[in-house]
Amino acid sequence: MPNDILISPSILSADFAALGQAVRDIDSAGADMIHVDVMDGHYVPNITIGPAVVKALRPHSAKTFDVHLMITPADPMIGAFVDAGSDIITVHPDAGPHLHRTLQSIKAHGIKAGVALNPATSPRVLDHVMDSLDMILVMSVNPGFGGQSFIPSQLAKIAELRAMIDATGRDIILEVDGGVNPQTAQDCIKAGANALVAGSAVFKGAGTYSENIAALRGSQT
Amino acid sequence: MPNDILISPSILSADFAALGQAVRDIDSAGADMIHVDVMDGHYVPNITIGPAVVKALRPHSAKTFDVHLMITPADPMIGAFVDAGSDIITVHPDAGPHLHRTLQSIKAHGIKAGVALNPATSPRVLDHVMDSLDMILVMSVNPGFGGQSFIPSQLAKIAELRAMIDATGRDIILEVDGGVNPQTAQDCIKAGANALVAGSAVFKGAGTYSENIAALRGSQT
Amino acid sequence: MPNDILISPSILSADFAALGQAVRDIDSAGADMIHVDVMDGHYVPNITIGPAVVKALRPHSAKTFDVHLMITPADPMIGAFVDAGSDIITVHPDAGPHLHRTLQSIKAHGIKAGVALNPATSPRVLDHVMDSLDMILVMSVNPGFGGQSFIPSQLAKIAELRAMIDATGRDIILEVDGGVNPQTAQDCIKAGANALVAGSAVFKGAGTYSENIAALRGSQT
Amino acid sequence: MPNDILISPSILSADFAALGQAVRDIDSAGADMIHVDVMDGHYVPNITIGPAVVKALRPHSAKTFDVHLMITPADPMIGAFVDAGSDIITVHPDAGPHLHRTLQSIKAHGIKAGVALNPATSPRVLDHVMDSLDMILVMSVNPGFGGQSFIPSQLAKIAELRAMIDATGRDIILEVDGGVNPQTAQDCIKAGANALVAGSAVFKGAGTYSENIAALRGSQT
Amino acid sequence: MPNDILISPSILSADFAALGQAVRDIDSAGADMIHVDVMDGHYVPNITIGPAVVKALRPHSAKTFDVHLMITPADPMIGAFVDAGSDIITVHPDAGPHLHRTLQSIKAHGIKAGVALNPATSPRVLDHVMDSLDMILVMSVNPGFGGQSFIPSQLAKIAELRAMIDATGRDIILEVDGGVNPQTAQDCIKAGANALVAGSAVFKGAGTYSENIAALRGSQT
Amino acid sequence: MPNDILISPSILSADFAALGQAVRDIDSAGADMIHVDVMDGHYVPNITIGPAVVKALRPHSAKTFDVHLMITPADPMIGAFVDAGSDIITVHPDAGPHLHRTLQSIKAHGIKAGVALNPATSPRVLDHVMDSLDMILVMSVNPGFGGQSFIPSQLAKIAELRAMIDATGRDIILEVDGGVNPQTAQDCIKAGANALVAGSAVFKGAGTYSENIAALRGSQT
Repeated sequence: MPNDILISPSILSADFAALGQAVRDIDSAGADMIHVDVMDGHYVPNITIGPAVVKALRPHSAKTFDVHLMITPADPMIGAFVDAGSDIITVHPDAGPHLHRTLQSIKAHGIKAGVALNPATSPRVLDHVMDSLDMILVMSVNPGFGGQSFIPSQLAKIAELRAMIDATGRDIILEVDGGVNPQTAQDCIKAGANALVAGSAVFKGAGTYSENIAALRGSQT
Repeated sequence: MPNDILISPSILSADFAALGQAVRDIDSAGADMIHVDVMDGHYVPNITIGPAVVKALRPHSAKTFDVHLMITPADPMIGAFVDAGSDIITVHPDAGPHLHRTLQSIKAHGIKAGVALNPATSPRVLDHVMDSLDMILVMSVNPGFGGQSFIPSQLAKIAELRAMIDATGRDIILEVDGGVNPQTAQDCIKAGANALVAGSAVFKGAGTYSENIAALRGSQT
Repeated sequence: MPNDILISPSILSADFAALGQAVRDIDSAGADMIHVDVMDGHYVPNITIGPAVVKALRPHSAKTFDVHLMITPADPMIGAFVDAGSDIITVHPDAGPHLHRTLQSIKAHGIKAGVALNPATSPRVLDHVMDSLDMILVMSVNPGFGGQSFIPSQLAKIAELRAMIDATGRDIILEVDGGVNPQTAQDCIKAGANALVAGSAVFKGAGTYSENIAALRGSQT
Repeated sequence: MPNDILISPSILSADFAALGQAVRDIDSAGADMIHVDVMDGHYVPNITIGPAVVKALRPHSAKTFDVHLMITPADPMIGAFVDAGSDIITVHPDAGPHLHRTLQSIKAHGIKAGVALNPATSPRVLDHVMDSLDMILVMSVNPGFGGQSFIPSQLAKIAELRAMIDATGRDIILEVDGGVNPQTAQDCIKAGANALVAGSAVFKGAGTYSENIAALRGSQT
Repeated sequence: MPNDILISPSILSADFAALGQAVRDIDSAGADMIHVDVMDGHYVPNITIGPAVVKALRPHSAKTFDVHLMITPADPMIGAFVDAGSDIITVHPDAGPHLHRTLQSIKAHGIKAGVALNPATSPRVLDHVMDSLDMILVMSVNPGFGGQSFIPSQLAKIAELRAMIDATGRDIILEVDGGVNPQTAQDCIKAGANALVAGSAVFKGAGTYSENIAALRGSQT
Repeated sequence: MPNDILISPSILSADFAALGQAVRDIDSAGADMIHVDVMDGHYVPNITIGPAVVKALRPHSAKTFDVHLMITPADPMIGAFVDAGSDIITVHPDAGPHLHRTLQSIKAHGIKAGVALNPATSPRVLDHVMDSLDMILVMSVNPGFGGQSFIPSQLAKIAELRAMIDATGRDIILEVDGGVNPQTAQDCIKAGANALVAGSAVFKGAGTYSENIAALRGSQT
């Protein structure tokens, strides 16, 4: 049942000149979520897109808008991303001293809240917010830097997080982002991930978007 | 001769889901420049778009890409915006302590350099960089905040800058951004501006893009 | 006519253990305004009091609450100080890049807006916001540092500002803060000031509060 | 024996217009400590009171002044809070990179040093400073934000810290702050806390200050 | 076999007026590494020396240049310190949010990468970068502050790190810096350290440089 | 009379491995001052040397130690540079909001105070501190960046500053730093400068240090 694994194509790899079309295409190709990478040039050394882009894309798909904020501080921007139509907002634990409050405030808007872990970040930072989480995003490359490949040491972290999630008995999405392709996807799934972000593997993969998405799920279309 | 006044439609008012089409449309409607508003959530309280968007739009028009960096610091991002295809990069004088260096480094890439003045900022900050400037951008609203109208006191500043420019004998574009519509456009032009940024006046104006642009120039199409 | 000169005793010199009493006392002693010095440990190297203190004192006097924000950034705190009951909010021009916007946002709340100038700061920073101002506050000592005396060079700045104000034809309060005592008060008034902040000269002066206030006005009670 | 549990009423809930009276009242009502919440608008989004307020209140009670610094960086302000009369200074571990040094420098002044943990913060950050600590403060709401209620997940953290403290064999106060009322107080005490901060439960509770304090201790007056 | 323990004299204790001579002297006295303490006045409250000093000293010794960056952010300076001739660059995990990336980028230059732990910092921050590390530096005093002595609680941390290193099966140098003298050196070695930084114990010790270095190794020269 | 023009060789161009020798050599070659360029990697993108280097060099020359702080904030480091033996400390006006206070605090230590102007900085920032100044330093290149040549537009600024100084009737040194060689030196002197910083023109010039210094003064040795 391929849909057990959620595929969240990152529009960072789509054509920024025609994002609406890209979103409609991956929607109909079977994407489960639309992944939006927000960078502010401060938390990471790049600037990408902000809430107005999310808002413009919202009418093009009813799928889950999975918005990853690589910004610091995150708190002042959360309202704008909620208003723009985000379904999940994911923040970094070191984007400010009040992680619990940030998650609280995301959830108070009636949407889902996630935390993203950089490659060096320990799952221990989540110990006291597990009951507030709807998603954990494992960065398998360093966010905001180009030309990187999947960091294998993150597989152990995925497994550690899977155990932490199972211990809560709650349904927390365990998503992986960075260097995900059909091969590394299987490693992530085996380690316990149930959601995968993919950029070039979907938008610049060998097949159609539909085939590329299926390949990430490890299924034949 | 309408083209004496350069019109630079801001894509911030275009449909972010179809920016390529928007750029092609304003290009063929007679826009002289494509205005790109870059915000980082730090210099101004909003995040818009970064270099990847500029790069994606570059193939859609040969017109001047007029890129306004509302970011701090500007220096680390200049290379990326040059590589993306910017023709003019405009920075704020209070985005870092080394304005002369920033302009030098933009021009060292072979493109044009501008400085933008917030409504409260004095033209005096330009006294010692006039010989490095290709453009001065007068903000007639406060950048990064929504729902504002043209600030009339900026007309005197435009006139002051026109005199400063004429005194140099050099060809420096004097551009105005914020609340520009066919009425305020004429005020700006009379005060000495020769370039106008317009968002909703072009993209959401009463006529076709071509008519809207002509209206800003004060000409009949 | 003593009331031509507005006296704004700074509660920084009052007994913080009994501020309500202090405010009632200076009110009945003839103070025109209640001066509140807000410091955040960042714009200046001290922390004093915040909006909750203003709110608690508000019922104790109907006089003008003259609130001086020595904080950076000022924008996120303005709503709280308005809600607390401020009548005038004064900010520093280098507390953020958007001085015009800050003044706009203070006035949008229906209260008065001021700008404070540090001893080294030039009146030129006000050239393009004069039409938004209700008060200019000249710091005649460096704010946030203890044990200083009146800096005489600020008298020339007061005179320069008086001329700028008169040129507008508008009624802008010209207030002086720092080392103001009966002697320096007369110098400030002669230079053009029409409002004086005083701390120890009121609260720790030789006479009653009423006599101390009268002495600052240069009048016999 | 009710005094086993230390009660530290937070003057943030007292009348800021008459703090001296408030301090005398809670002192005679049986408070063990006077809790002072210092906020700088940077570590938390509010500004409250600084060292001059502590100094003014010092003569009004001989009880322990329990000063919680929600400021960053803390180091430059420690001297001022010591001079003002603090008996315990508590800092946040993410207020700067040198937590051990900050504690060292507090204790070098001859007073007690504490560390406060935000709801998301792990007790693991204390592993290497346990031998420098006199107090651990568990925040059971997010500091600096209004209108919150007790976060139940912090009870497990209190228990974890109780075990850590007992393992040292040292006498470290385990204090809880946020949403503490007679009901949550009992939960905290059962989990291992031996000091409770309370604001409205003391100052705006159903009974006299004395009764409210007794109710927190779980005793009949 | 004394050379099992690497001695890295810190030139912070040498004569800054004659550093080349100092480096040559400790090289011939048997130092294994030359320790360079870089401080920027931001991560720590002192400024020491930068890349130009490293470059000037490089020709004076072929020993390992062991460069400890007490700066934030570290990333923009790494290229300059590599070009200057560093053999190992050590950074602090809280100098930026991208520790894994920083280590990656140091190693991409073909040199060794280390992480330094402040006295309060937990070894847990290294759990997910152990496979990128060539050195771990335990600070046994707080970096950047003068007049401190060896903090005994760091011995347990050294032992904990020794176990972590041994578990990897990789050859990671475990270095200690701060208050190291012939007595504390033996404690560090027993706890598992195999490299020692020493300043005054080498440059201002009782014997010749050679004798002082031997004393740290616990050997007779 | 060559000594009318003060020559301040910058040790940034000397051999950092043998600074004491370099200082003795330029002292005996006729230098009037020893110029020390302090960079912190924040105000400028390089780190050079701090107070310990100044202290180590102090015994090697009785000439004026002319210390230029390219750091932000400057205030916390002033004491250390005074204690190290500085005779003049020069700061940047945008290194903090309290320029007047910084100058006051330098002079309170009994040494001289200067302000440095970046190429884009207007002399207007000095209008209200002229009576506190002992030196004005005109940067004729952008500080902290390599490989630049003398910026000719700074000559007009030197002339403007000369007029401002003469108008005070006070003896304020007017120094120029950046790309100074025997040719540009004459331009600076003609424009009104009476002190010149030179790095490579002294340490890597065509002649002996003595000849190089004389060439800058425009005299025959």
